[in-house]
Amino acid sequence: MTDTLPGLHPAAAASLHRWHGMVRARDLSGLKEIVHPDATFRSPMAHSPYRSADALALALGTVITVFQDFAYHRQLVSADGLDVVLEFSARVGDKQVKGVDLVRFGEDGRITDFEVMVRPLSGLQALGAEMGARLGHLLPAFKG
Amino acid sequence: MTDTLPGLHPAAAASLHRWHGMVRARDLSGLKEIVHPDATFRSPMAHSPYRSADALALALGTVITVFQDFAYHRQLVSADGLDVVLEFSARVGDKQVKGVDLVRFGEDGRITDFEVMVRPLSGLQALGAEMGARLGHLLPAFKG
Repeated sequence: MTDTLPGLHPAAAASLHRWHGMVRARDLSGLKEIVHPDATFRSPMAHSPYRSADALALALGTVITVFQDFAYHRQLVSADGLDVVLEFSARVGDKQVKGVDLVRFGEDGRITDFEVMVRPLSGLQALGAEMGARLGHLLPAFKG
Repeated sequence: MTDTLPGLHPAAAASLHRWHGMVRARDLSGLKEIVHPDATFRSPMAHSPYRSADALALALGTVITVFQDFAYHRQLVSADGLDVVLEFSARVGDKQVKGVDLVRFGEDGRITDFEVMVRPLSGLQALGAEMGARLGHLLPAFKG
């Protein structure tokens, strides 16, 4: 895993570098500095997206406490240099998961859309149970 | 959606072009011409991968009969030009799904690894039920 990705927009590359630093430190307290206030979070479990930087920070700040043995692998970039896919692996309890973060950046480098997908079904169910227990009473307020 | 993706290895680009043609025609009968015989298929449902071009052709040939209103959206490429992510949307019965194909090509352009992830949970469960009904008796033979 590397922070450099040919073709990535320079402002997006700067934010991605900060993102990787926050994940390595397991400290997302600075996340909102690189997120657009109206950003959208698309959960692997729920159909409806969640709106706002607050929702994104809440969801991602929680998920990094659920995932154990988290590691990023392949990184991919779109032709316009503003979308990246970050492949990851992790463990939720005794379930192994593979996943991707699909992250869309604005021209100013701020994240506008963050979508997560996870496989297999058993891992997604374990993740859903953990996230529901921690956030089930909070996240619905951000649906939209 | 376009077939051209800057940075994509030329041999991989040729195979990807053929892939998109097959998906548009909803006819994967030529798929094995662009798949390595020992390719791996990683299902969104199951933890264990399935081995061989036959398993890949069986799984993908079935899934395109399950997905309705299928459309590709964003395409992304890795720094070495041999991995692509293809974002898609589809419907399974009354469930909307979003998903990604993570496809790894060899230097000769043949697919060596094809991994699928789908969200949300309700869509993945609907897909799993349909795939299980059609393939549950066949795919386990390819587990590896």
